[in-house]
Amino acid sequence: MEVKERILAAAEGLFLQYGFRSISMDDIARHLAVSKKTIYQFFSDKDEIVCLVATRHFNREKELCKERIFDQAENAVHELLQVSRHIKTTTMNANPSIMFDLQKYHPKAWQIFKDFKLGFILQHLRRNLKQGIEEGLYRADINVEIIARLRLEQIQLAFDASAFPPTEFNFFDIQLEFLDHFIRGIVTEKGLQLLTEYKTKEHHHAQ
Amino acid sequence: MEVKERILAAAEGLFLQYGFRSISMDDIARHLAVSKKTIYQFFSDKDEIVCLVATRHFNREKELCKERIFDQAENAVHELLQVSRHIKTTTMNANPSIMFDLQKYHPKAWQIFKDFKLGFILQHLRRNLKQGIEEGLYRADINVEIIARLRLEQIQLAFDASAFPPTEFNFFDIQLEFLDHFIRGIVTEKGLQLLTEYKTKEHHHAQ
Repeated sequence: MEVKERILAAAEGLFLQYGFRSISMDDIARHLAVSKKTIYQFFSDKDEIVCLVATRHFNREKELCKERIFDQAENAVHELLQVSRHIKTTTMNANPSIMFDLQKYHPKAWQIFKDFKLGFILQHLRRNLKQGIEEGLYRADINVEIIARLRLEQIQLAFDASAFPPTEFNFFDIQLEFLDHFIRGIVTEKGLQLLTEYKTKEHHHAQ
Repeated sequence: MEVKERILAAAEGLFLQYGFRSISMDDIARHLAVSKKTIYQFFSDKDEIVCLVATRHFNREKELCKERIFDQAENAVHELLQVSRHIKTTTMNANPSIMFDLQKYHPKAWQIFKDFKLGFILQHLRRNLKQGIEEGLYRADINVEIIARLRLEQIQLAFDASAFPPTEFNFFDIQLEFLDHFIRGIVTEKGLQLLTEYKTKEHHHAQ
């Protein structure tokens, strides 16, 4: 791997584990056992590293979702469940402060996240809802645009420490409860049957 | 009505119609045909008026909800529908910027709103969810605390101009779609039947 790539990969790991705020250029250099001067040969400051890490991360997410989920899902309900499972895996080891840090200290990278949200994720949700309606799994009378944005904001709401203080709530309990509630709010009877089947299977797998 | 009360009532009407930001002490004085000096006899600045208006407003809301809704609702589903109808009536003529103005320019009054939300509204939602479960109208396996807070944030989300640009979305369409989705997400089969009945009745009334 070239040096620039190695620095970005290491920075991503450190940010994910400790948050953006608490990791300095010194920490990144120390972690890679290189001098700070080496790092400054490639990046002008920490903000630039954060933005590049964010861009890389979201591009990889797009690829992963397309290849492993969108192209393979059995139907709309299955796709939502798979996406949620994927979010669970990727955020499992993330520091809870990353969203807050990004918004507060790295507005440019926060904008990259917002573009990803309003672009890729919203597009996926719109498509999923339309597909589910066509498959007879979601009610035909839902307002696709409003419901897609409702789900979009719900995903982020689980990260909101003022609405869900981390001392009182477990992040994954919230995401699971939100997803289950969200799907039940849009399904037809046929869709609900399918949801129940998938959940029973998942439950058996987990045991 | 004593003078202080008259000033607060007039200010509330003006704030609701034009937002907190655009109404000055001059506007309030002019509207009441009194001098600014008269107003400053009772209040030290606009922020004090805003806070008193907010307190009065939320206290009145508590009374109204208790007397006209909580004490009279036929069951949990009916109560949620009635509260939503009430929110629709009270926000019908409100300027869309009031939430934004409050948060940005009147942090003390914003805190009063947050206390109302996390106190009275959250308490109502918890109680409603527990009642619905007891009545067999809501699923017994919902996480009451998470679902209550989900609804709490949804009510506010409809006011969020970055999630739902007012040029693209109608505020009441959003609230209606949210409420319908929210209830469907928690009901049992029996609850869903009841929801459908109430909505059919409402629809006939509206015609």
